[in-house]
Amino acid sequence: MNPSSATPIRAIDVIRKKRDGGELSRAEIEALVGGYTRDEIPDYQVSAWLMAALIKGMTRAETAALTDTMLRSGEVLDFSDLPSRKVDKHSTGGVGDKTSLVLAPLAAAGGLTVPMISGRGLGHTGGTLDKLEAIPGFNVNLPVARFRKVLETCGCAMIGQTAEIAPADRKIYALRDVTGTVESPFLICASIMSKKLAEGIDGLVLDVKTGSGAFMKSEEDAVYLAELMVETGERMGKKMVALITDMDQPLGRYVGNSLEVVEVLEVLRGGGPVDLCELCLDLAAWMFFLGEVAATVQEGKQMSRQLIASGAGLAKFREMVEMQGGDAKVVDDPKRLPRSQHTLDVVSTASGYVTAIQCERAGTACVILGGGRERKEDSVDPAVGFVLHKKVGDSIAAGEVLCTVHYNSEARGERAKGLLLDSFQIGGQPPIERRPLVHRVITKSGEKN
Amino acid sequence: MNPSSATPIRAIDVIRKKRDGGELSRAEIEALVGGYTRDEIPDYQVSAWLMAALIKGMTRAETAALTDTMLRSGEVLDFSDLPSRKVDKHSTGGVGDKTSLVLAPLAAAGGLTVPMISGRGLGHTGGTLDKLEAIPGFNVNLPVARFRKVLETCGCAMIGQTAEIAPADRKIYALRDVTGTVESPFLICASIMSKKLAEGIDGLVLDVKTGSGAFMKSEEDAVYLAELMVETGERMGKKMVALITDMDQPLGRYVGNSLEVVEVLEVLRGGGPVDLCELCLDLAAWMFFLGEVAATVQEGKQMSRQLIASGAGLAKFREMVEMQGGDAKVVDDPKRLPRSQHTLDVVSTASGYVTAIQCERAGTACVILGGGRERKEDSVDPAVGFVLHKKVGDSIAAGEVLCTVHYNSEARGERAKGLLLDSFQIGGQPPIERRPLVHRVITKSGEKN
Repeated sequence: MNPSSATPIRAIDVIRKKRDGGELSRAEIEALVGGYTRDEIPDYQVSAWLMAALIKGMTRAETAALTDTMLRSGEVLDFSDLPSRKVDKHSTGGVGDKTSLVLAPLAAAGGLTVPMISGRGLGHTGGTLDKLEAIPGFNVNLPVARFRKVLETCGCAMIGQTAEIAPADRKIYALRDVTGTVESPFLICASIMSKKLAEGIDGLVLDVKTGSGAFMKSEEDAVYLAELMVETGERMGKKMVALITDMDQPLGRYVGNSLEVVEVLEVLRGGGPVDLCELCLDLAAWMFFLGEVAATVQEGKQMSRQLIASGAGLAKFREMVEMQGGDAKVVDDPKRLPRSQHTLDVVSTASGYVTAIQCERAGTACVILGGGRERKEDSVDPAVGFVLHKKVGDSIAAGEVLCTVHYNSEARGERAKGLLLDSFQIGGQPPIERRPLVHRVITKSGEKN
Repeated sequence: MNPSSATPIRAIDVIRKKRDGGELSRAEIEALVGGYTRDEIPDYQVSAWLMAALIKGMTRAETAALTDTMLRSGEVLDFSDLPSRKVDKHSTGGVGDKTSLVLAPLAAAGGLTVPMISGRGLGHTGGTLDKLEAIPGFNVNLPVARFRKVLETCGCAMIGQTAEIAPADRKIYALRDVTGTVESPFLICASIMSKKLAEGIDGLVLDVKTGSGAFMKSEEDAVYLAELMVETGERMGKKMVALITDMDQPLGRYVGNSLEVVEVLEVLRGGGPVDLCELCLDLAAWMFFLGEVAATVQEGKQMSRQLIASGAGLAKFREMVEMQGGDAKVVDDPKRLPRSQHTLDVVSTASGYVTAIQCERAGTACVILGGGRERKEDSVDPAVGFVLHKKVGDSIAAGEVLCTVHYNSEARGERAKGLLLDSFQIGGQPPIERRPLVHRVITKSGEKN
């Protein structure tokens, strides 16, 4: 209608192009996302574009351009003056997934720098920040200068996203949350990678969860997302690997913020449940390999074992807690962590074998107890959660305890008990096929092993 | 996340369901659209839903439910106390399409009541209200009581949409316009039908345009939309027909608000160009047939011819203009209509035959002259436009005049001239295939003849 003027890129044209299945240029993505971040483009145009992008999909080039635009919307940290390699790990979220708290100190003990920026619990999944804050005094809101200081001294630091990092992502994520546009691998990739690349890292290990407790329920979806993130990171010059790992039951035995810190300390002391320990060792091994302090992944795994056995990982954890204002005495005396007023046992009514633990339901039980958020503005109770006594494959007799609920409110305790009882499936035979915890490793786009 | 509370329908769940290709219930559509009209649901959620609906489509039941929800969002006029049948005509919009101004008085002269609520120019197409307002004093903003009075007395009245009629449509249309969600047959159907059914009519004749000057460029799309509207109207108990008609060149010879009124008067006097006359007769015939004042469509066409020959149509037009505050003297003295200060001829550089007139380009020429709106808030110049001297199939010699531009601004006149020259295609041979103006008639969903 206005053929004469050589206008700048208009949001409406970008929306229409994606709606009709076209591939957007970097300039078009920048015009829309940059304009949105600068408050020049309204919510309703971006939500229409997000829906079109979710349904029509995005190419690798578009995904990389979106990631880059979101990354550049804010501050990109630069730790290039620190001599050691900067490597981080990111998980797509699960139930009982406390590996970050083990990995950051372990990798630092092995000579890497781990500038970890984490999130809070989302839906039925837990969040690293909520777990850290179960430690009295632990401050996840460090200014960048202090973050750098902790990194320089300790080698690892764990904080929340700052206002300066990827503001476009924060704005777009909030919009996706209320417009049904969360579940797009392209948008998920851009959201995760823009924040992680803003950490100024050299390499990134991705733990992409699949199964009943994961956001990507199907392995196919998990692999698709993993490949997308690996390729996007590599396009930006980062060393990347993605492990597709099992989230068909909670990881480890403890679920709930305080309880998970207890289990982290067990692992760093050389104990802890096998599944959690093995996953921590595998992830750490890849961090060491990507960070070039181990020549092979196998060597990295050996290093990880030694750093646990020597107590170096635990010492690093203590140092980090101290430097971030936390009560370091909890490391040697976990009873100092917040504890619930009450516990109750969830008892099996049937005999046989645990064939499955519906993991989203189990995670929701923790949220209902107050260990997660039903609404964004809710506060979290660090003390509540549950301890699994039986996991998939274990035999169980009627009357035996499946798990113990830690609760502070009678009503919430009862609701959680019902959900947990419901999440256990008991059968006459043990499950035949037991998959390894790490389903596959994706080291390069398209290459799976 | 909140399994205990039996919550009302949430917008986010409705969006997700449509995103995943599900069929929405009437209650879900009402919750979203009703909530939006009541300002309880924000723009950004509705725009995400609109995009999902555009891409994923809607079923007939959903389209009917959306139409009904939008219809009921405001006042539904009731003229059931008026003894004659209420029948209207609606066109999907074209260039030079002034049939409404002929049909309303003609149908009223034949004994029908025509409560016509029309729109303004949109994009490259003209609007009935803009044309009516070319008549000095003509008031298209009658309150409902006055609208009823004109109808009772005159049998036809032509006004713009009031704030009380289908407010949901007005709100949603404005949002669609800026979010790339105009081009959905389902949303177009609901928008048109909700407004038309609010007129309290018994029957509706649809003129669905196809070709280079129509919104539905392909005949397939036009037929799809026509069937959808016919079925939706029939579901609501209305007598319906849709004519798929040619918009591959402007209709008639005059384009521009004042100029089109001149041509309307020619037709009502028994003159005017063949294509425009024939289409008016066909549409009027169907109005008489649906309104049961003619036993057959053929009889309706004969009636229409007689009402023109007798001058009854022209008299009705004069009466309506008078009752709506317009200068009725223009009917007998069209020179009283606004006229442009200047004219210029667009001359052919080639000899041969006119093989096509790119109709969207020609319509855009009229917009550029000031006869339409580049932005919603623009005012319209009633005097400008163009007169075609050659139409598709006509022979032309180099140096002969193709059309005459009526303009008030030199710069605009020159730009329009360029566009018009560009819109004419001249070839060595006349176009072989000449389709009839009415491509097909759709009388019942799925039935085409």
